Amino acid sequence: MSIRIGILGYGNLGRGAECALKNAPDMELKAVFTRRDPKTVSILTEHVPVLPVSEAPGMKDDIDVMILCGGSAADLPEQTPYYAGLFNVVDSFDTHARIPEHFAAVDQAAKTSGKTAAISIGWDPGLFSLNRMMAGAILPEGQSYTFWGKGVSQGHSDAIRRIKGVKDARQYTIPVEEALQAVRSGSNPELTTRQKHTRECFVVAEEGADLEQIRQEIVTMPNYFDEYDTTVHFISEEELKRDHSGIPHGGFVIHTGKTGVSGENGHVIEYSLKLDSNPEFTSAVLTAYARAVYRLNQEGQTGCKTVFDIAPAYLSPMSGEELRAHLL
Amino acid sequence: MSIRIGILGYGNLGRGAECALKNAPDMELKAVFTRRDPKTVSILTEHVPVLPVSEAPGMKDDIDVMILCGGSAADLPEQTPYYAGLFNVVDSFDTHARIPEHFAAVDQAAKTSGKTAAISIGWDPGLFSLNRMMAGAILPEGQSYTFWGKGVSQGHSDAIRRIKGVKDARQYTIPVEEALQAVRSGSNPELTTRQKHTRECFVVAEEGADLEQIRQEIVTMPNYFDEYDTTVHFISEEELKRDHSGIPHGGFVIHTGKTGVSGENGHVIEYSLKLDSNPEFTSAVLTAYARAVYRLNQEGQTGCKTVFDIAPAYLSPMSGEELRAHLL
Repeated sequence: MSIRIGILGYGNLGRGAECALKNAPDMELKAVFTRRDPKTVSILTEHVPVLPVSEAPGMKDDIDVMILCGGSAADLPEQTPYYAGLFNVVDSFDTHARIPEHFAAVDQAAKTSGKTAAISIGWDPGLFSLNRMMAGAILPEGQSYTFWGKGVSQGHSDAIRRIKGVKDARQYTIPVEEALQAVRSGSNPELTTRQKHTRECFVVAEEGADLEQIRQEIVTMPNYFDEYDTTVHFISEEELKRDHSGIPHGGFVIHTGKTGVSGENGHVIEYSLKLDSNPEFTSAVLTAYARAVYRLNQEGQTGCKTVFDIAPAYLSPMSGEELRAHLL
Repeated sequence: MSIRIGILGYGNLGRGAECALKNAPDMELKAVFTRRDPKTVSILTEHVPVLPVSEAPGMKDDIDVMILCGGSAADLPEQTPYYAGLFNVVDSFDTHARIPEHFAAVDQAAKTSGKTAAISIGWDPGLFSLNRMMAGAILPEGQSYTFWGKGVSQGHSDAIRRIKGVKDARQYTIPVEEALQAVRSGSNPELTTRQKHTRECFVVAEEGADLEQIRQEIVTMPNYFDEYDTTVHFISEEELKRDHSGIPHGGFVIHTGKTGVSGENGHVIEYSLKLDSNPEFTSAVLTAYARAVYRLNQEGQTGCKTVFDIAPAYLSPMSGEELRAHLL
């Protein structure tokens, strides 16, 4: 019997989860839930209903895992605890600083309902966290560094769009190659924000806008750009559409550490991602963890989990025997 | 209270485990067991006894986890099931083809004794297996490739040493850069053995030996070299000692896969290791999993486990709260 999946929220992430489910032989999409008028939402899968979120509670017994595809700022802090009271759930909550309180709220809800939840699933938090944690446990005499990019930062692109005279914008975060090399060398460099990443902006200006003024506003913007070396390119709307419509991202977790009688041997553990589509990859991770959450719940392991708490075998449709025979 | 550790077998791996324990605040070395005359074995840690293996069973209640540091060919198939009857154990059994039978034997022994065992712990099998498995579960429309090196292959070095006229030798396995690039491109290349790795040999010949004859014997040796492009360098004993006394290794697990409505977005997940000392890194992994095995046993999770079955949090001395607050 297939694991019956619901998708709640149908933006880039929800659509990505829908695509990922097509490659999951053991899972089946039962319904997509939206806060919009369902008539205005058309999905990719035939014969699957699009329903208003208000109908989700009534489908409690028809859905094994709800994949929550809302945003971390406004949606998930409310949604995940609420839906964990009704379903097994996974979310991609990515506000690092607020994870402990989110965990506590979801854990309480899931324990009360006897459901299983996995939060902060994706690549950072998520796979990157796992690699930081495991590398640190294996080489405690060492240090982990995380670099992001090259990739589109939605938050930074939005910040530029709010500037007067800007029609549209796309911002890329780019790791500095020299910093990557310094880290890989094992020298444990102290790196400033400016030394780790640069920012490159492609901006479509309104007609007649003061370009130099826009450039100044971008590069001096507190928190977003002032601590970085930022390059601004003004391009046409057509160029933005043609060359910058994808949502690529990625990055590196590099851990270097020492072993031996007196740390005489150095080691480098490096994990990297190069993603054509950030939301589609994130939702592929969510989908694999939806499988895990279902199985954990079947075994009676309820409450809130993170990537740290879930044995990797739960992510795969293969049996333990198959995994050991073919992948170990 | 510290986790009380025994090390069984004091070669490179046992010594590496001893070093790793010095960086584990929650673990304590209780004894080293050897099949040699204990008087001839001197270890790095003061006030820790070196005992004959025959005394291990008597210390059943004094040791929480025994780290088994024997070899996969002759030692572990016997040792791991036997000691799993007495202790929680970890081993680095790395004969991929025989893992299922080793698992079955250890699982039965550990379930009978109520102990917990983790087998095939290290980097391949081990961390590489974990990355192959997770990447495949996340991007099932994709393919994983494993490359080894640059590093010393002990087996190939030994094979060269058995050739008449060879005094000593060191063999390096080297991944082919073009093959790595082809894999990273996402083109899913079909690669022959020859296309993936080359082999480089540093050989010290006996005086008066026929060097061309030795070279021919190496490059045509079935299974070991005949399917590879192999380079042979003759060097002096001093040069071998000076330039090739380390045991470096490493490698790459690269998984490329597709997502989207019709696989229109490509992704690359890459995990790589660059290790100055293969045995010291392997024993650092063993030590972290010894911690996990102890905790699993405390929770009543007995029997045989692999990297697939163990939630990552068990590897770290940090609590769940600390992990979520600092590493997620």
